Amino acid sequence: MTGIVIDLNADLGEGFGRWTLTDDEALLSLVTSANVACGFHAGDPATMRRVCDIAAERGVRIGAQVSYRDLAGFGRRAMDVPADELADEITYQIGSLQVFARAAGAAVTYVKPHGALYNRVVADPEQAAAVAAGVRLAAPGLPVLCLPGSAIHVQAARVGLPTVDEAFADRAYTTTGTLVPRSKPGAVITDPLQVARRAVTLARERRVTTVNGEFVAVRARSLCLHGDTPGAVEMAKQVRAALEAAGVRVEAFA
Amino acid sequence: MTGIVIDLNADLGEGFGRWTLTDDEALLSLVTSANVACGFHAGDPATMRRVCDIAAERGVRIGAQVSYRDLAGFGRRAMDVPADELADEITYQIGSLQVFARAAGAAVTYVKPHGALYNRVVADPEQAAAVAAGVRLAAPGLPVLCLPGSAIHVQAARVGLPTVDEAFADRAYTTTGTLVPRSKPGAVITDPLQVARRAVTLARERRVTTVNGEFVAVRARSLCLHGDTPGAVEMAKQVRAALEAAGVRVEAFA
Amino acid sequence: MTGIVIDLNADLGEGFGRWTLTDDEALLSLVTSANVACGFHAGDPATMRRVCDIAAERGVRIGAQVSYRDLAGFGRRAMDVPADELADEITYQIGSLQVFARAAGAAVTYVKPHGALYNRVVADPEQAAAVAAGVRLAAPGLPVLCLPGSAIHVQAARVGLPTVDEAFADRAYTTTGTLVPRSKPGAVITDPLQVARRAVTLARERRVTTVNGEFVAVRARSLCLHGDTPGAVEMAKQVRAALEAAGVRVEAFA
Amino acid sequence: MTGIVIDLNADLGEGFGRWTLTDDEALLSLVTSANVACGFHAGDPATMRRVCDIAAERGVRIGAQVSYRDLAGFGRRAMDVPADELADEITYQIGSLQVFARAAGAAVTYVKPHGALYNRVVADPEQAAAVAAGVRLAAPGLPVLCLPGSAIHVQAARVGLPTVDEAFADRAYTTTGTLVPRSKPGAVITDPLQVARRAVTLARERRVTTVNGEFVAVRARSLCLHGDTPGAVEMAKQVRAALEAAGVRVEAFA
Repeated sequence: MTGIVIDLNADLGEGFGRWTLTDDEALLSLVTSANVACGFHAGDPATMRRVCDIAAERGVRIGAQVSYRDLAGFGRRAMDVPADELADEITYQIGSLQVFARAAGAAVTYVKPHGALYNRVVADPEQAAAVAAGVRLAAPGLPVLCLPGSAIHVQAARVGLPTVDEAFADRAYTTTGTLVPRSKPGAVITDPLQVARRAVTLARERRVTTVNGEFVAVRARSLCLHGDTPGAVEMAKQVRAALEAAGVRVEAFA
Repeated sequence: MTGIVIDLNADLGEGFGRWTLTDDEALLSLVTSANVACGFHAGDPATMRRVCDIAAERGVRIGAQVSYRDLAGFGRRAMDVPADELADEITYQIGSLQVFARAAGAAVTYVKPHGALYNRVVADPEQAAAVAAGVRLAAPGLPVLCLPGSAIHVQAARVGLPTVDEAFADRAYTTTGTLVPRSKPGAVITDPLQVARRAVTLARERRVTTVNGEFVAVRARSLCLHGDTPGAVEMAKQVRAALEAAGVRVEAFA
Repeated sequence: MTGIVIDLNADLGEGFGRWTLTDDEALLSLVTSANVACGFHAGDPATMRRVCDIAAERGVRIGAQVSYRDLAGFGRRAMDVPADELADEITYQIGSLQVFARAAGAAVTYVKPHGALYNRVVADPEQAAAVAAGVRLAAPGLPVLCLPGSAIHVQAARVGLPTVDEAFADRAYTTTGTLVPRSKPGAVITDPLQVARRAVTLARERRVTTVNGEFVAVRARSLCLHGDTPGAVEMAKQVRAALEAAGVRVEAFA
Repeated sequence: MTGIVIDLNADLGEGFGRWTLTDDEALLSLVTSANVACGFHAGDPATMRRVCDIAAERGVRIGAQVSYRDLAGFGRRAMDVPADELADEITYQIGSLQVFARAAGAAVTYVKPHGALYNRVVADPEQAAAVAAGVRLAAPGLPVLCLPGSAIHVQAARVGLPTVDEAFADRAYTTTGTLVPRSKPGAVITDPLQVARRAVTLARERRVTTVNGEFVAVRARSLCLHGDTPGAVEMAKQVRAALEAAGVRVEAFA
């Protein structure tokens, strides 16, 4: 059976000790890939284990959501980490998740940078190369989930790491196919219906309406759903339902 | 070839970022087992990688030195961590080291609790069971390096983990074969010659002179050398030389 | 004007960066004393400033809620911190809050230990003395909010610190006037009406119904309301309303 | 009595728990101003208290050495901290030191940014303004020790904070009077004699030899001595001796 296939990924396990943020239990019934926080911006060991256990049970793919070491800033503050250090910090985080994935009878099968690191490696070749080096040290051949055309996309490919393209159904796009910065008005789309419709268009037509009202081509094997907002679960439900109603298979990447 | 064999282990990688404590490079030429700090009481990713790389190159066995989460107290403050949490914190630390050991072409082949946790699991069956559970989740069959007769020794065996007995050539022993608490005068022996002599006796005769001057039987497959004192390297050199001069093979446990 | 007077205190500012826990804004309209987290178990600088600003504006008393250094465990894991270190950690936390209170035109006018430290200093004279020493170093004469008859009560008095007695309207009491441990069934009372009724009895009659159904005398100048539960605000509203309806003045201690 | 006067400042208290870096005891006999680490890049409460106690005893001025929150990177990794957050983090650190200075019978009488923050606020007006705002919130009128002509110099003045100019006797200068970046060869001068000679020239002639061999004017009321190198104490001794031999009074700024 062929047809249109899309993966849904979300950031999970983003609590820390007493604090919770994401409804991991509910989201793990809706997404096909779980970006699990590894302790640097969020994510305590008990939560990591629990998310891995449920993900393994439900056949959800487990990915390491790697970050700058910044609990106080939730990994949202860009840091000038020397390349060598950054690579080792990435490897450490992946290792700390691999052990829980393995214990759950599964494996870490991809890596996705978080927050400020995600944004930084879109355009910074040095940090992008460091992330790629850290991933490769942890596991040669581990795919990186990232924006098509980003620096990390290029650097990952350079050291033989596969990449998986992702797109954002709830983010506004410019006419050149890049994301409108969060600081701009209208950057984030909060209406679940509209997001669901955009998700279907992204999956079926590989394009999205820009802020100017035109279409721009956006290729994506995975759509990112935000897990840390109050309406996250409801949004995920509608997106998934809309995709399935439109004949799109929701399935993790190979 | 048979004969008397002993392992020498030391705590390594106990710096953190800008701070260093142990002369890892020098000690890795003298010990046969490296207890590598995993980031909870000490140990940053770059140091962990470096220690694993050198250990692998020199054929030194790599062990995870697991601790309470306590950088400010260097893991020397006992904590009432709930058993479930503690187990997961142990697993996390082991995983974070496994990835660097693997990248170096080696493996984490044992676990040793550090500091206050080491002392706590001598007598606390609940925390000892938690540590054993955490080790087992990380890797069934991973040996635990510990005091013979301790609670962790019992709990590890209970869940099918091998144990490796260790003794301390630089610590005073009571007549019942337990360590004299550090708070007591004479608890730590600092004269390298005396420590070297005790090491030989421990290895060859499986006994040690107590604070009362008598001998007490102490079985040990490994001797612990302290790496965090100014004279640590010199002490290790003398111990190793004395053992070899006495016909003891210095070799990691199987 | 004389009459019955009671203070209402609650733990506030117990988020950390991206994570929030307590509805500080709402609770600051209901309590008369704010126990502000100082960064060791919770509490980031921005939150500390904000809570101090609102508290100052509304005339709510500002207290330092001091804790073990344990973000991962939310200060709920007892730690064997050496007395000297513990005292300095207490002083540090108080200082970090004083600056924000002062900037808001107010002052830190009491100290309350948090979580595991609160429980520990009920019975441990050494840690209680350390806390008292730390408070005294920060500000001689700063009152400590604590259980009557506790070790910290005794140790604070010893070094000349005033104490303020507190009681818990939502916790079950034993026949000897101590709290039923949280691990026991029925230890925490969740029905707002019942809690409100107990608050009135505590304030007006200086006694409370025990788990056995009898009364036990409990003196208290302050009642603690929990701020970190979903129904915290509603509970606080009902307690305050019930007290005022019963002719009790809700007012901070002098 | 008039004449030429210079202040000597050094970073102190830069250990953390088990780790030490600076020989605080020795340096406090040589410098006139102590930049005390406040816990964000280094500096535990016990060390902060001890340094304040000795400084107060010896009449050494106490300054808050404020940093990004980055223990793992020793505050040497620039961070894009939002201005509001950064200001509050600065205030928090100053408060945490004020309490120990006050307990020692002294006061925090200036602020100096550390590491990556120091470098960042030379040129970044937004972060410089945030630091100035944080200082002002902690204590209006608190001087900032910084490079003449830097962004922080400008922003501090803007909100009414005095500034104290500092220079580096052990750093190479460009012909425009800026520091040669550490990444360039020859950026740091390690010969104590040469550093001592440069210190005298800086103090007496208010100029320094550049990398091109010419002189450039550099005004400074304080000279920074590095405390975290092996030869730090010896270097400080020679600099102080040379200054005094040349008739320069070594004295803290007013």
